[in-house]
Amino acid sequence: MRTVIFGGGNSLDNFIARKDHAADWLLWNDEVAAISKENWEKFDTVLMGRKTYEALLRYGTTAYPNVKNYVFSRTMKESPDARVKIISSDAAEFVQELKNQEGKGICVAGGGELAKSLFAADLIDEIGCNIHPVLLGSGIPLFYEMERQIDLELLECKVLKTGCVYVTYRVKH
Amino acid sequence: MRTVIFGGGNSLDNFIARKDHAADWLLWNDEVAAISKENWEKFDTVLMGRKTYEALLRYGTTAYPNVKNYVFSRTMKESPDARVKIISSDAAEFVQELKNQEGKGICVAGGGELAKSLFAADLIDEIGCNIHPVLLGSGIPLFYEMERQIDLELLECKVLKTGCVYVTYRVKH
Repeated sequence: MRTVIFGGGNSLDNFIARKDHAADWLLWNDEVAAISKENWEKFDTVLMGRKTYEALLRYGTTAYPNVKNYVFSRTMKESPDARVKIISSDAAEFVQELKNQEGKGICVAGGGELAKSLFAADLIDEIGCNIHPVLLGSGIPLFYEMERQIDLELLECKVLKTGCVYVTYRVKH
Repeated sequence: MRTVIFGGGNSLDNFIARKDHAADWLLWNDEVAAISKENWEKFDTVLMGRKTYEALLRYGTTAYPNVKNYVFSRTMKESPDARVKIISSDAAEFVQELKNQEGKGICVAGGGELAKSLFAADLIDEIGCNIHPVLLGSGIPLFYEMERQIDLELLECKVLKTGCVYVTYRVKH
């Protein structure tokens, strides 16, 4: 069974981006580059919601390189990039099928609306957050409100030179 | 100038209690007891909003022992405990005056509505969170939405045996 991983750089008050999707507050250094490189080597597939993909397009990126890109949307008909597949069927069912296929890890990118539906279906296996030393005050939540509690097991905690705290968790199914 | 400290045990998705104020999910051990003891020795004053105080009353506690207790409310007239002073004037002005007096640290207890107004007035100096390995899904936020960004400096990060990550921050004024 392939592992589905969700997360990203977040603020201490649970935002992954400003309201306009800006990520200008994210702190980048050699440690984050190394973590990012290591993580990307685990994936061959990236899942996004429509809003995350539209934000990506506004920043001039049409697809993540070297991985399969899937965007979940009932309104978007096609992507400007032929490498990106638009999925209009039920996200949870689609991801369950993906998990049953052979392959590397599956990354859930962007804000938490897609993740919320995948958490509800108990399809997310790991969480990785790089908690930044900032309260953004407002923005796009990493974790949306959910119907039920999700118990986690801390796998790793690393303090970075930037003052970020990088934590990874296993979801207790 | 006295230090104002805000925080508590929180979930990874930024809740300090369930919607009904329940704290049954908080993990307690000898490490948390030691941190708690060390922190309480720094304080001689506790500030609460009315909702936090009412939740405390429901759980049978009428005041925190050995410290001055202030509850901010425009509707509550008096406390069942003579040790608790109800403050109906502006919270930020009152806390600014407290900070100017001689004394030990000042603790902002409970959910983040009072903290939100104190953050807005730049009166909070330190944050301490014990991030629990759980997504509660819903509840009372530790950090409420705010008008502006608050930059922090990581002071300490400690992994506890419970899988909690205890972090403290200095607020950059």
